[in-house]
Amino acid sequence: MKFEIYFCGSIRAGRQDAEIYRRIISKLKKYGTVLTEFVGTNDDSKEGESHTKERELSDSEIHERDIRLLEQCEALVAEVTQPSLGVGYEVGRAVVLKKPILCLFRPSCGKILSALIRGIHNEEDIIIKDYKESDLDDTLQEFFEKVQKMQEKNKK
Amino acid sequence: MKFEIYFCGSIRAGRQDAEIYRRIISKLKKYGTVLTEFVGTNDDSKEGESHTKERELSDSEIHERDIRLLEQCEALVAEVTQPSLGVGYEVGRAVVLKKPILCLFRPSCGKILSALIRGIHNEEDIIIKDYKESDLDDTLQEFFEKVQKMQEKNKK
Ligand SMILES: [Ca+2]
Repeated sequence: MKFEIYFCGSIRAGRQDAEIYRRIISKLKKYGTVLTEFVGTNDDSKEGESHTKERELSDSEIHERDIRLLEQCEALVAEVTQPSLGVGYEVGRAVVLKKPILCLFRPSCGKILSALIRGIHNEEDIIIKDYKESDLDDTLQEFFEKVQKMQEKNKK
Repeated sequence: MKFEIYFCGSIRAGRQDAEIYRRIISKLKKYGTVLTEFVGTNDDSKEGESHTKERELSDSEIHERDIRLLEQCEALVAEVTQPSLGVGYEVGRAVVLKKPILCLFRPSCGKILSALIRGIHNEEDIIIKDYKESDLDDTLQEFFEKVQKMQEKNKK
């Protein structure tokens, strides 16, 4: 499988999960190209600004770039444990673009996932999944097999 | 002015700002009907689930109701200081629906606003505003005058 994948995780709302983002991104590479690899770049800056290039772009340019990548992608994978406006925004835009969506939530964190994210699950092309890291391989495999099947179906 | 207004604030991601939401909602009533008044309802529950009716709906029903109200509204006002997936999601959907948007952010909180929210500001129908509570009356007045003018222009 060789998909173009849009990964979302919290940047300015908190980098507590940056290590997990990095590990998910590294697993996603088995399934294709991660268009937003910068989300995983670990950093020491207090603000959570991740990498040099990000700092050189204006917010409006970041938005333009991300929407362009979102339109380009064949699937969106979001880690949604850390509440983030940006991640919510990206998921909202991806729903309208009818992209296959996988949202990954760790209940072990004790947080409660937004009803608007939980509520878009449809067991088809939008999957909201409670996970622990040891489940990730199976969850990703299952999701991308679905994406594959949907693409084959659409080609017919 | 008598607009149908969609107000967004964090629910499950944290109710620290619930009192501010309530005060904003009470100011919004000067400009019309707030379709999502339940966002301001103060509560004592740890989870931040605000009111009885909300608790009776499934997440999928909450999502359906909110999208219906979003389509119905003439303007969206969001308090975006507390990072929230749900608020980000609503803003993303509202952008696609071409609704006039006002996002209110309090820099005094020491947080940094998402680039994807900051980046949609266009000085026209999408306004991202750094505010303190004493500015609110002027900010809302200015925004709804813009909405009014846009509606009049569209009628012509
Ligand atoms: Ca929420």
